[in-house]
Amino acid sequence: MCQLLGMNCATPTDITFSFRGFSQRAGITSDHSDGFGIAFFEDKACRLFVDNQSAVESPIADLIRNYPIKSRNVIAHIRKATQGKITLENSHPFIRELWGRHWIFAHNGDLHDFNPPLSGRFTPVGNTDSERAFCYLLDQLVEAFGYEEPSLEQIFEVLEKISPQIAEYGTFNYCLSNGKALFSYAITKLHWLVREYPFNQAHLIDLDVEVDFSQVTTPEDRVAVITTEPLTHNENWTAYQPGEMILFQHGEPIKKAITHVERLKREQENPEIKRITRADQY
Amino acid sequence: MCQLLGMNCATPTDITFSFRGFSQRAGITSDHSDGFGIAFFEDKACRLFVDNQSAVESPIADLIRNYPIKSRNVIAHIRKATQGKITLENSHPFIRELWGRHWIFAHNGDLHDFNPPLSGRFTPVGNTDSERAFCYLLDQLVEAFGYEEPSLEQIFEVLEKISPQIAEYGTFNYCLSNGKALFSYAITKLHWLVREYPFNQAHLIDLDVEVDFSQVTTPEDRVAVITTEPLTHNENWTAYQPGEMILFQHGEPIKKAITHVERLKREQENPEIKRITRADQY
Repeated sequence: MCQLLGMNCATPTDITFSFRGFSQRAGITSDHSDGFGIAFFEDKACRLFVDNQSAVESPIADLIRNYPIKSRNVIAHIRKATQGKITLENSHPFIRELWGRHWIFAHNGDLHDFNPPLSGRFTPVGNTDSERAFCYLLDQLVEAFGYEEPSLEQIFEVLEKISPQIAEYGTFNYCLSNGKALFSYAITKLHWLVREYPFNQAHLIDLDVEVDFSQVTTPEDRVAVITTEPLTHNENWTAYQPGEMILFQHGEPIKKAITHVERLKREQENPEIKRITRADQY
Repeated sequence: MCQLLGMNCATPTDITFSFRGFSQRAGITSDHSDGFGIAFFEDKACRLFVDNQSAVESPIADLIRNYPIKSRNVIAHIRKATQGKITLENSHPFIRELWGRHWIFAHNGDLHDFNPPLSGRFTPVGNTDSERAFCYLLDQLVEAFGYEEPSLEQIFEVLEKISPQIAEYGTFNYCLSNGKALFSYAITKLHWLVREYPFNQAHLIDLDVEVDFSQVTTPEDRVAVITTEPLTHNENWTAYQPGEMILFQHGEPIKKAITHVERLKREQENPEIKRITRADQY
Protein backbone atom coordinates (compact mmCIF):
# COMPACT_ATOMS: atom_id res chain seq x y z
CA MET A 1 0.00 0.00 0.00
CA CYS A 2 2.86 2.37 0.61
CA GLN A 3 6.41 2.93 1.71
CA LEU A 4 7.60 4.93 4.68
CA LEU A 5 10.63 7.14 5.18
CA GLY A 6 11.55 8.73 8.50
CA MET A 7 14.52 10.79 9.58
CA ASN A 8 15.55 11.88 13.08
CA CYS A 9 18.67 14.01 13.51
CA ALA A 10 20.93 15.54 16.15
CA THR A 11 21.26 18.74 14.12
CA PRO A 12 18.94 20.17 11.44
CA THR A 13 19.66 18.14 8.32
CA ASP A 14 18.25 18.17 4.82
CA ILE A 15 16.71 14.97 3.50
CA THR A 16 17.40 15.72 -0.17
CA PHE A 17 19.70 12.68 -0.70
CA SER A 18 17.38 10.09 0.84
CA PHE A 19 14.24 11.65 -0.66
CA ARG A 20 15.79 11.57 -4.14
CA GLY A 21 16.23 7.80 -3.89
CA PHE A 22 12.96 7.20 -2.06
CA SER A 23 10.87 9.20 -4.54
CA GLN A 24 12.22 7.10 -7.45
CA ARG A 25 9.99 4.34 -6.13
CA ALA A 26 6.98 6.41 -7.12
CA GLY A 27 7.03 5.18 -10.71
CA ILE A 28 10.64 4.55 -11.74
CA THR A 29 12.07 1.72 -9.60
CA SER A 30 8.68 0.76 -8.15
CA ASP A 31 5.04 1.67 -8.81
CA HIS A 32 4.09 3.62 -5.67
CA SER A 33 2.72 6.39 -7.85
CA ASP A 34 -0.66 7.22 -6.30
CA GLY A 35 0.40 10.28 -4.35
CA PHE A 36 2.98 11.21 -1.78
CA GLY A 37 3.40 13.27 1.34
CA ILE A 38 6.24 14.60 3.45
CA ALA A 39 6.29 16.50 6.74
CA PHE A 40 9.22 18.52 8.10
CA PHE A 41 9.52 19.75 11.65
CA GLU A 42 11.48 22.94 12.10
CA ASP A 43 11.60 23.23 15.88
CA LYS A 44 7.92 23.33 16.87
CA ALA A 45 6.69 24.29 13.42
CA CYS A 46 5.65 21.62 10.97
CA ARG A 47 5.37 21.87 7.21
CA LEU A 48 3.33 19.18 5.53
CA PHE A 49 3.32 18.74 1.75
CA VAL A 50 0.97 16.28 0.05
CA ASP A 51 0.02 15.71 -3.55
CA ASN A 52 -2.01 13.13 -5.40
CA GLN A 53 0.41 13.20 -8.27
CA SER A 54 3.33 10.78 -7.97
CA ALA A 55 6.52 11.87 -6.24
CA VAL A 56 8.22 11.51 -9.63
CA GLU A 57 5.89 13.90 -11.47
CA SER A 58 4.57 16.23 -8.76
CA PRO A 59 5.87 19.82 -8.94
CA ILE A 60 5.68 19.81 -5.13
CA ALA A 61 8.00 16.78 -4.90
CA ASP A 62 10.29 18.52 -7.36
CA LEU A 63 10.40 21.57 -5.09
CA ILE A 64 11.36 19.34 -2.14
CA ARG A 65 14.13 17.58 -4.07
CA ASN A 66 15.60 21.01 -4.86
CA TYR A 67 14.77 23.17 -1.81
CA PRO A 68 16.76 21.80 1.12
CA ILE A 69 14.56 22.22 4.19
CA LYS A 70 16.68 21.54 7.27
CA SER A 71 14.84 19.53 9.87
CA ARG A 72 15.42 17.31 12.90
CA ASN A 73 12.36 15.15 12.22
CA VAL A 74 10.93 14.20 8.84
CA ILE A 75 8.27 11.66 7.87
CA ALA A 76 7.50 10.84 4.22
CA HIS A 77 5.12 8.42 2.52
CA ILE A 78 4.55 7.25 -1.05
CA ARG A 79 1.35 5.45 -1.90
CA LYS A 80 0.26 2.55 -4.05
CA ALA A 81 -3.52 2.57 -3.75
CA THR A 82 -4.62 -1.00 -3.01
CA GLN A 83 -7.97 0.08 -1.60
CA GLY A 84 -9.78 3.37 -1.14
CA LYS A 85 -10.00 6.36 -3.42
CA ILE A 86 -6.94 8.43 -4.28
CA THR A 87 -8.15 11.57 -2.57
CA LEU A 88 -6.02 14.20 -0.97
CA GLU A 89 -7.68 13.85 2.44
CA ASN A 90 -6.56 10.21 2.49
CA SER A 91 -2.92 11.14 1.87
CA HIS A 92 -0.35 10.40 4.55
CA PRO A 93 1.19 11.84 6.65
CA PHE A 94 -1.69 13.06 8.81
CA ILE A 95 -1.45 16.00 11.20
CA ARG A 96 -3.05 16.83 14.56
CA GLU A 97 -2.17 19.13 17.47
CA LEU A 98 -1.77 17.87 21.03
CA TRP A 99 -0.10 19.53 24.04
CA GLY A 100 0.83 22.57 21.91
CA ARG A 101 2.77 20.39 19.48
CA HIS A 102 1.95 19.19 16.00
CA TRP A 103 1.90 15.40 15.66
CA ILE A 104 2.61 13.67 12.35
CA PHE A 105 1.75 10.07 11.51
CA ALA A 106 2.25 7.82 8.48
CA HIS A 107 1.28 4.15 8.27
CA ASN A 108 2.15 1.20 6.06
CA GLY A 109 -0.23 -1.75 6.11
CA ASP A 110 -3.92 -2.65 6.24
CA LEU A 111 -6.11 -2.84 9.32
CA HIS A 112 -9.18 -5.02 8.86
CA ASP A 113 -12.47 -4.04 10.53
CA PHE A 114 -10.68 -1.62 12.81
CA ASN A 115 -13.43 0.62 14.16
CA PRO A 116 -12.47 1.62 17.69
CA PRO A 117 -14.59 4.01 19.74
CA LEU A 118 -13.30 7.58 19.38
CA SER A 119 -14.01 10.37 21.87
CA GLY A 120 -14.48 13.08 19.24
CA ARG A 121 -11.33 14.83 20.45
CA PHE A 122 -9.56 13.62 17.27
CA THR A 123 -11.78 12.76 14.31
CA PRO A 124 -10.64 11.38 10.95
CA VAL A 125 -11.07 13.81 8.04
CA GLY A 126 -10.77 11.07 5.40
CA ASN A 127 -11.87 7.43 5.55
CA THR A 128 -8.65 5.42 5.90
CA ASP A 129 -7.91 2.82 8.57
CA SER A 130 -4.60 4.68 9.02
CA GLU A 131 -6.06 8.03 10.06
CA ARG A 132 -8.49 6.19 12.34
CA ALA A 133 -5.55 4.44 14.03
CA PHE A 134 -3.76 7.80 14.41
CA CYS A 135 -6.82 9.42 16.03
CA TYR A 136 -7.19 6.39 18.31
CA LEU A 137 -3.53 6.55 19.41
CA LEU A 138 -3.83 10.26 20.26
CA ASP A 139 -7.15 9.66 22.01
CA GLN A 140 -5.45 7.03 24.18
CA LEU A 141 -2.62 9.45 25.00
CA VAL A 142 -5.15 12.06 26.19
CA GLU A 143 -6.98 9.30 28.09
CA ALA A 144 -3.71 8.45 29.86
CA PHE A 145 -2.29 11.92 30.50
CA GLY A 146 -5.07 14.48 30.05
CA TYR A 147 -3.79 17.86 28.92
CA GLU A 148 -0.50 17.69 30.87
CA GLU A 149 2.33 16.83 28.49
CA PRO A 150 4.11 13.66 29.65
CA SER A 151 7.74 12.68 28.99
CA LEU A 152 8.78 10.83 25.83
CA GLU A 153 9.32 7.70 27.92
CA GLN A 154 5.78 7.89 29.29
CA ILE A 155 4.40 8.30 25.76
CA PHE A 156 6.49 5.30 24.67
CA GLU A 157 4.93 3.17 27.40
CA VAL A 158 1.39 3.95 26.22
CA LEU A 159 2.27 3.38 22.55
CA GLU A 160 3.97 0.11 23.51
CA LYS A 161 0.70 -1.03 25.08
CA ILE A 162 -1.74 0.23 22.41
CA SER A 163 0.18 -0.49 19.18
CA PRO A 164 0.16 -4.31 19.45
CA GLN A 165 -3.58 -4.15 20.22
CA ILE A 166 -4.10 -2.30 16.93
CA ALA A 167 -1.75 -4.75 15.17
CA GLU A 168 -4.19 -7.55 16.03
CA TYR A 169 -6.30 -6.05 13.20
CA GLY A 170 -3.54 -6.24 10.58
CA THR A 171 -0.19 -4.90 9.47
CA PHE A 172 0.72 -1.83 11.45
CA ASN A 173 4.08 -0.31 10.54
CA TYR A 174 4.26 3.37 11.38
CA CYS A 175 6.31 6.50 12.04
CA LEU A 176 5.02 9.12 14.49
CA SER A 177 6.68 12.37 15.53
CA ASN A 178 5.91 15.45 17.61
CA GLY A 179 9.04 17.28 16.46
CA LYS A 180 10.98 16.31 19.60
CA ALA A 181 11.53 12.66 18.74
CA LEU A 182 10.39 9.97 16.33
CA PHE A 183 8.46 6.87 17.41
CA SER A 184 8.53 3.91 15.02
CA TYR A 185 6.82 0.54 15.08
CA ALA A 186 6.90 -2.43 12.73
CA ILE A 187 5.02 -5.68 12.30
CA THR A 188 6.28 -6.73 8.88
CA LYS A 189 8.79 -4.49 7.16
CA LEU A 190 10.86 -1.54 8.36
CA HIS A 191 14.62 -0.90 8.46
CA TRP A 192 16.82 1.64 10.20
CA LEU A 193 20.40 2.84 10.39
CA VAL A 194 22.37 5.62 12.04
CA ARG A 195 24.89 7.72 10.13
CA GLU A 196 27.45 9.33 12.42
CA TYR A 197 31.09 10.37 12.70
CA PRO A 198 33.28 9.12 11.04
CA PHE A 199 30.93 9.43 8.08
CA ASN A 200 31.33 7.34 4.94
CA GLN A 201 30.11 7.21 1.39
CA ALA A 202 26.62 6.00 0.59
CA HIS A 203 25.29 4.87 -2.77
CA LEU A 204 21.56 4.97 -3.51
CA ILE A 205 19.91 1.75 -4.68
CA ASP A 206 17.21 3.50 -6.73
CA LEU A 207 19.35 6.05 -8.51
CA ASP A 208 22.98 6.09 -9.56
CA VAL A 209 23.93 8.72 -7.01
CA GLU A 210 26.64 8.58 -4.38
CA VAL A 211 27.31 11.00 -1.54
CA ASP A 212 30.42 11.18 0.58
CA PHE A 213 28.84 12.26 3.87
CA SER A 214 32.28 12.98 5.36
CA GLN A 215 32.47 15.96 2.99
CA VAL A 216 29.14 17.50 3.97
CA THR A 217 28.94 16.85 7.73
CA THR A 218 30.50 17.89 11.02
CA PRO A 219 31.33 15.54 13.92
CA GLU A 220 28.21 16.83 15.73
CA ASP A 221 25.91 15.50 13.02
CA ARG A 222 24.10 12.23 13.57
CA VAL A 223 21.17 11.02 11.50
CA ALA A 224 18.86 8.06 11.97
CA VAL A 225 17.01 6.96 8.83
CA ILE A 226 13.98 4.68 8.98
CA THR A 227 12.57 3.18 5.78
CA THR A 228 10.40 0.34 4.49
CA GLU A 229 13.16 -0.94 2.18
CA PRO A 230 16.86 0.00 2.51
CA LEU A 231 17.81 3.05 0.47
CA THR A 232 21.53 2.40 -0.03
CA HIS A 233 23.75 -0.51 -1.13
CA ASN A 234 26.76 -0.12 1.05
CA GLU A 235 25.41 0.65 4.51
CA ASN A 236 24.27 -1.62 7.32
CA TRP A 237 20.50 -1.49 7.57
CA THR A 238 18.90 -3.26 10.53
CA ALA A 239 15.50 -4.89 10.02
CA TYR A 240 12.89 -4.34 12.74
CA GLN A 241 11.76 -7.50 14.47
CA PRO A 242 8.02 -8.22 14.28
CA GLY A 243 6.38 -6.04 16.94
CA GLU A 244 9.47 -3.92 17.57
CA MET A 245 9.10 -0.32 18.70
CA ILE A 246 12.03 2.12 18.59
CA LEU A 247 12.14 5.70 19.84
CA PHE A 248 14.72 7.92 18.13
CA GLN A 249 16.01 11.20 19.51
CA HIS A 250 19.09 13.25 18.57
CA GLY A 251 19.71 10.85 15.66
CA GLU A 252 19.90 7.59 17.62
CA PRO A 253 17.66 4.98 19.23
CA ILE A 254 17.06 5.89 22.88
CA LYS A 255 14.47 3.26 23.76
CA LYS A 256 13.45 -0.09 22.27
CA ALA A 257 10.86 -2.73 23.05
CA ILE A 258 9.50 -5.89 21.48
CA THR A 259 5.72 -6.03 21.79
CA HIS A 260 3.66 -9.17 21.76
CA VAL A 261 1.05 -9.54 19.00
CA GLU A 262 -1.21 -12.58 19.51
CA ARG A 263 -2.13 -12.67 15.83
CA LEU A 264 1.49 -13.27 14.81
CA LYS A 265 1.74 -16.24 17.15
CA ARG A 266 -1.50 -17.74 15.82
CA GLU A 267 -0.31 -17.26 12.25
CA GLN A 268 3.03 -18.88 13.01
CA GLU A 269 1.31 -21.93 14.45
CA ASN A 270 -1.17 -22.08 11.59
CA PRO A 271 0.22 -20.39 8.45
CA GLU A 272 -3.03 -21.01 6.57
CA ILE A 273 -4.89 -18.32 8.52
CA LYS A 274 -2.34 -15.70 7.53
CA ARG A 275 -4.03 -13.09 5.36
CA ILE A 276 -1.66 -11.51 2.86
CA THR A 277 -3.25 -8.45 1.31
CA ARG A 278 -1.90 -6.32 -1.50
CA ALA A 279 -0.92 -3.81 1.14
CA ASP A 280 1.42 -6.36 2.68
CA GLN A 281 3.02 -7.09 -0.66
CA TYR A 282 3.55 -3.43 -1.43
CA MET B 1 1.31 43.44 10.98
CA CYS B 2 -0.02 41.65 7.93
CA GLN B 3 -2.45 41.50 5.09
CA LEU B 4 -5.18 38.94 4.52
CA LEU B 5 -6.53 37.36 1.36
CA GLY B 6 -9.51 35.01 1.30
CA MET B 7 -11.37 33.36 -1.55
CA ASN B 8 -14.65 31.45 -1.48
CA CYS B 9 -16.01 29.97 -4.72
CA ALA B 10 -19.01 28.18 -6.18
CA THR B 11 -16.74 25.92 -8.25
CA PRO B 12 -13.08 24.98 -7.70
CA THR B 13 -11.09 28.01 -8.85
CA ASP B 14 -7.41 28.81 -8.93
CA ILE B 15 -6.22 31.89 -7.07
CA THR B 16 -3.18 32.50 -9.28
CA PHE B 17 -4.36 35.95 -10.51
CA SER B 18 -5.19 37.38 -7.08
CA PHE B 19 -2.16 35.78 -5.41
CA ARG B 20 0.16 37.28 -8.03
CA GLY B 21 -1.01 40.77 -7.12
CA PHE B 22 -1.26 40.08 -3.39
CA SER B 23 2.24 38.60 -3.15
CA GLN B 24 3.74 41.74 -4.74
CA ARG B 25 3.03 43.43 -1.41
CA ALA B 26 5.67 41.22 0.17
CA GLY B 27 8.52 43.51 -0.82
CA ILE B 28 7.67 45.15 -4.15
CA THR B 29 4.60 47.38 -3.68
CA SER B 30 4.66 47.11 0.12
CA ASP B 31 7.04 45.74 2.76
CA HIS B 32 5.14 42.73 4.13
CA SER B 33 8.21 40.60 3.61
CA ASP B 34 8.54 38.64 6.87
CA GLY B 35 6.99 35.41 5.69
CA PHE B 36 3.79 34.26 4.10
CA GLY B 37 1.30 31.44 4.25
CA ILE B 38 -1.54 30.11 2.14
CA ALA B 39 -4.04 27.30 2.71
CA PHE B 40 -6.13 25.60 0.03
CA PHE B 41 -9.12 23.39 0.70
CA GLU B 42 -9.74 20.69 -1.86
CA ASP B 43 -13.03 19.23 -0.63
CA LYS B 44 -12.20 18.07 2.90
CA ALA B 45 -8.45 18.04 2.37
CA CYS B 46 -6.40 21.09 3.22
CA ARG B 47 -2.95 22.01 1.96
CA LEU B 48 -1.12 24.62 3.97
CA PHE B 49 2.08 26.23 2.71
CA VAL B 50 4.12 28.57 4.91
CA ASP B 51 7.56 30.05 4.57
CA ASN B 52 9.56 32.63 6.48
CA GLN B 53 10.99 33.97 3.27
CA SER B 54 8.92 36.71 1.63
CA ALA B 55 6.20 35.79 -0.85
CA VAL B 56 8.32 37.55 -3.48
CA GLU B 57 11.45 35.46 -2.90
CA SER B 58 10.16 32.17 -1.50
CA PRO B 59 10.46 29.16 -3.86
CA ILE B 60 7.23 27.92 -2.27
CA ALA B 61 5.37 31.12 -3.22
CA ASP B 62 6.84 30.76 -6.68
CA LEU B 63 5.42 27.23 -6.91
CA ILE B 64 1.98 28.55 -5.92
CA ARG B 65 2.06 31.35 -8.49
CA ASN B 66 2.78 28.74 -11.18
CA TYR B 67 0.95 25.59 -10.01
CA PRO B 68 -2.77 26.33 -10.20
CA ILE B 69 -4.39 24.50 -7.27
CA LYS B 70 -8.16 24.59 -7.74
CA SER B 71 -9.99 25.24 -4.52
CA ARG B 72 -13.34 26.46 -3.18
CA ASN B 73 -11.82 28.04 -0.08
CA VAL B 74 -8.42 29.72 0.20
CA ILE B 75 -6.89 31.83 2.97
CA ALA B 76 -3.54 33.60 2.54
CA HIS B 77 -1.48 35.90 4.75
CA ILE B 78 1.64 38.00 4.29
CA ARG B 79 3.46 39.29 7.33
CA LYS B 80 5.23 42.44 8.41
CA ALA B 81 6.67 41.54 11.80
CA THR B 82 5.77 44.37 14.19
CA GLN B 83 6.26 42.24 17.28
CA GLY B 84 7.34 38.67 17.97
CA LYS B 85 10.05 36.62 16.34
CA ILE B 86 9.85 35.60 12.70
CA THR B 87 9.54 31.90 13.38
CA LEU B 88 7.72 29.40 11.27
CA GLU B 89 5.43 28.30 14.11
CA ASN B 90 4.15 31.89 14.33
CA SER B 91 3.24 31.96 10.63
CA HIS B 92 -0.39 32.30 9.64
CA PRO B 93 -2.62 30.62 8.61
CA PHE B 94 -2.96 28.22 11.54
CA ILE B 95 -4.55 24.78 11.28
CA ARG B 96 -6.59 22.60 13.66
CA GLU B 97 -9.05 19.73 13.25
CA LEU B 98 -12.58 19.84 14.64
CA TRP B 99 -15.62 17.66 13.78
CA GLY B 100 -13.57 15.74 11.20
CA ARG B 101 -12.76 18.93 9.30
CA HIS B 102 -9.61 20.98 9.10
CA TRP B 103 -10.06 24.59 10.22
CA ILE B 104 -7.85 27.38 8.93
CA PHE B 105 -7.46 30.82 10.51
CA ALA B 106 -5.51 33.97 9.67
CA HIS B 107 -5.63 37.23 11.61
CA ASN B 108 -4.70 40.84 10.98
CA GLY B 109 -4.25 43.07 14.02
CA ASP B 110 -2.89 43.10 17.56
CA LEU B 111 -4.63 41.85 20.69
CA HIS B 112 -3.29 43.39 23.89
CA ASP B 113 -3.07 41.29 27.05
CA PHE B 114 -5.38 38.69 25.57
CA ASN B 115 -4.86 35.61 27.75
CA PRO B 116 -8.17 33.76 27.91
CA PRO B 117 -8.52 30.46 29.76
CA LEU B 118 -8.05 27.54 27.35
CA SER B 119 -9.35 24.02 28.00
CA GLY B 120 -6.29 22.26 26.56
CA ARG B 121 -8.40 20.89 23.70
CA PHE B 122 -6.68 23.38 21.37
CA THR B 123 -3.29 24.69 22.47
CA PRO B 124 -1.15 27.27 20.66
CA VAL B 125 2.07 25.87 19.17
CA GLY B 126 3.67 29.31 18.80
CA ASN B 127 3.30 32.40 20.97
CA THR B 128 1.14 34.79 18.95
CA ASP B 129 -2.03 36.50 20.14
CA SER B 130 -3.54 35.30 16.83
CA GLU B 131 -3.11 31.58 17.42
CA ARG B 132 -4.36 32.06 20.98
CA ALA B 133 -7.51 33.73 19.61
CA PHE B 134 -7.98 30.87 17.12
CA CYS B 135 -7.68 28.24 19.87
CA TYR B 136 -10.12 30.23 22.02
CA LEU B 137 -12.69 30.47 19.20
CA LEU B 138 -12.54 26.71 18.58
CA ASP B 139 -12.70 26.02 22.31
CA GLN B 140 -15.87 28.11 22.50
CA LEU B 141 -17.37 26.19 19.57
CA VAL B 142 -16.74 22.88 21.38
CA GLU B 143 -18.13 24.46 24.56
CA ALA B 144 -21.31 25.34 22.66
CA PHE B 145 -21.81 22.22 20.55
CA GLY B 146 -19.66 19.41 21.97
CA TYR B 147 -18.55 16.91 19.35
CA GLU B 148 -21.76 17.12 17.27
CA GLU B 149 -21.13 19.25 14.20
CA PRO B 150 -23.58 22.18 14.10
CA SER B 151 -24.84 24.04 11.02
CA LEU B 152 -22.92 26.97 9.52
CA GLU B 153 -25.63 29.31 10.83
CA GLN B 154 -25.18 27.98 14.37
CA ILE B 155 -21.41 28.44 14.11
CA PHE B 156 -22.00 32.00 12.85
CA GLU B 157 -24.11 32.77 15.92
CA VAL B 158 -21.34 31.72 18.31
CA LEU B 159 -18.66 33.59 16.34
CA GLU B 160 -20.91 36.66 16.27
CA LYS B 161 -21.05 36.54 20.07
CA ILE B 162 -17.37 35.73 20.79
CA SER B 163 -15.57 37.81 18.14
CA PRO B 164 -16.56 41.27 19.49
CA GLN B 165 -15.52 40.10 22.98
CA ILE B 166 -12.05 39.33 21.60
CA ALA B 167 -12.06 42.64 19.69
CA GLU B 168 -12.28 44.47 23.04
CA TYR B 169 -8.57 43.55 23.33
CA GLY B 170 -7.57 45.12 20.01
CA THR B 171 -7.83 44.92 16.25
CA PHE B 172 -9.35 41.64 15.21
CA ASN B 173 -9.76 41.21 11.46
CA TYR B 174 -9.82 37.56 10.43
CA CYS B 175 -10.69 34.88 7.89
CA LEU B 176 -11.72 31.41 9.09
CA SER B 177 -12.71 28.40 7.00
CA ASN B 178 -13.55 24.73 7.45
CA GLY B 179 -13.59 24.04 3.71
CA LYS B 180 -17.39 24.33 3.51
CA ALA B 181 -17.62 28.10 3.89
CA LEU B 182 -15.55 31.13 4.84
CA PHE B 183 -16.25 33.26 7.92
CA SER B 184 -14.81 36.78 7.92
CA TYR B 185 -14.77 39.54 10.50
CA ALA B 186 -13.35 43.05 10.51
CA ILE B 187 -12.78 45.80 13.03
CA THR B 188 -10.60 48.13 10.99
CA LYS B 189 -9.78 47.11 7.44
CA LEU B 190 -11.16 44.42 5.14
CA HIS B 191 -12.80 44.57 1.70
CA TRP B 192 -14.79 42.12 -0.37
CA LEU B 193 -16.33 41.66 -3.80
CA VAL B 194 -18.09 38.96 -5.79
CA ARG B 195 -17.13 38.14 -9.37
CA GLU B 196 -19.95 36.44 -11.27
CA TYR B 197 -21.61 36.15 -14.65
CA PRO B 198 -21.40 38.27 -16.78
CA PHE B 199 -17.70 38.46 -15.94
CA ASN B 200 -15.57 41.48 -16.79
CA GLN B 201 -11.97 42.48 -17.03
CA ALA B 202 -9.94 43.14 -13.91
CA HIS B 203 -6.65 44.98 -13.64
CA LEU B 204 -4.31 44.38 -10.70
CA ILE B 205 -3.19 47.38 -8.66
CA ASP B 206 0.15 45.86 -7.65
CA LEU B 207 1.26 44.52 -11.00
CA ASP B 208 0.55 45.56 -14.56
CA VAL B 209 -1.57 42.50 -15.28
CA GLU B 210 -5.10 42.35 -16.60
CA VAL B 211 -7.39 39.34 -16.91
CA ASP B 212 -10.60 39.13 -18.88
CA PHE B 213 -12.53 36.76 -16.62
CA SER B 214 -15.24 36.31 -19.28
CA GLN B 215 -12.65 34.36 -21.30
CA VAL B 216 -11.71 31.94 -18.52
CA THR B 217 -15.01 31.29 -16.73
CA THR B 218 -18.37 29.60 -17.20
CA PRO B 219 -21.75 31.01 -16.07
CA GLU B 220 -21.66 28.60 -13.09
CA ASP B 221 -18.53 30.23 -11.67
CA ARG B 222 -18.85 32.71 -8.84
CA VAL B 223 -15.98 33.90 -6.69
CA ALA B 224 -15.94 36.01 -3.54
CA VAL B 225 -12.60 37.66 -2.76
CA ILE B 226 -11.84 39.11 0.67
CA THR B 227 -8.72 41.22 1.17
CA THR B 228 -7.20 43.83 3.48
CA GLU B 229 -6.68 46.30 0.63
CA PRO B 230 -8.45 46.09 -2.76
CA LEU B 231 -6.46 44.11 -5.33
CA THR B 232 -7.85 45.63 -8.55
CA HIS B 233 -8.48 49.14 -9.96
CA ASN B 234 -11.64 48.68 -11.88
CA GLU B 235 -13.88 46.59 -9.66
CA ASN B 236 -16.29 47.57 -6.88
CA TRP B 237 -14.78 46.59 -3.55
CA THR B 238 -17.00 46.96 -0.48
CA ALA B 239 -15.36 47.94 2.80
CA TYR B 240 -16.44 46.02 5.92
CA GLN B 241 -18.07 48.18 8.56
CA PRO B 242 -16.38 48.13 11.98
CA GLY B 243 -17.51 44.94 13.70
CA GLU B 244 -19.02 43.40 10.56
CA MET B 245 -19.11 39.63 10.15
CA ILE B 246 -19.84 38.02 6.78
CA LEU B 247 -20.26 34.32 6.00
CA PHE B 248 -19.48 33.34 2.40
CA GLN B 249 -20.60 30.12 0.74
CA HIS B 250 -20.75 29.16 -2.95
CA GLY B 251 -18.99 32.42 -3.80
CA GLU B 252 -21.44 34.86 -2.19
CA PRO B 253 -22.36 36.30 1.20
CA ILE B 254 -25.07 34.17 2.80
CA LYS B 255 -25.20 35.80 6.24
CA LYS B 256 -24.13 39.17 7.64
CA ALA B 257 -24.17 40.83 11.03
CA ILE B 258 -22.84 43.98 12.65
CA THR B 259 -21.43 43.25 16.08
CA HIS B 260 -21.11 45.74 18.87
CA VAL B 261 -17.62 46.43 20.24
CA GLU B 262 -17.66 48.62 23.37
CA ARG B 263 -14.05 49.68 22.82
CA LEU B 264 -14.91 51.31 19.47
CA LYS B 265 -17.66 53.37 21.10
CA ARG B 266 -15.34 54.50 23.90
CA GLU B 267 -12.66 55.44 21.37
CA GLN B 268 -15.15 57.38 19.27
CA GLU B 269 -16.25 59.40 22.28
CA ASN B 270 -12.68 59.95 23.42
CA PRO B 271 -10.22 59.66 20.49
CA GLU B 272 -7.25 60.16 22.81
CA ILE B 273 -7.57 56.67 24.30
CA LYS B 274 -7.33 55.10 20.86
CA ARG B 275 -4.16 53.03 20.67
CA ILE B 276 -2.73 52.84 17.18
CA THR B 277 -0.07 50.18 16.99
CA ARG B 278 2.20 49.38 14.08
CA ALA B 279 -0.04 46.41 13.42
CA ASP B 280 -2.94 48.76 12.78
CA GLN B 281 -0.89 50.83 10.38
CA TYR B 282 0.28 47.81 8.42
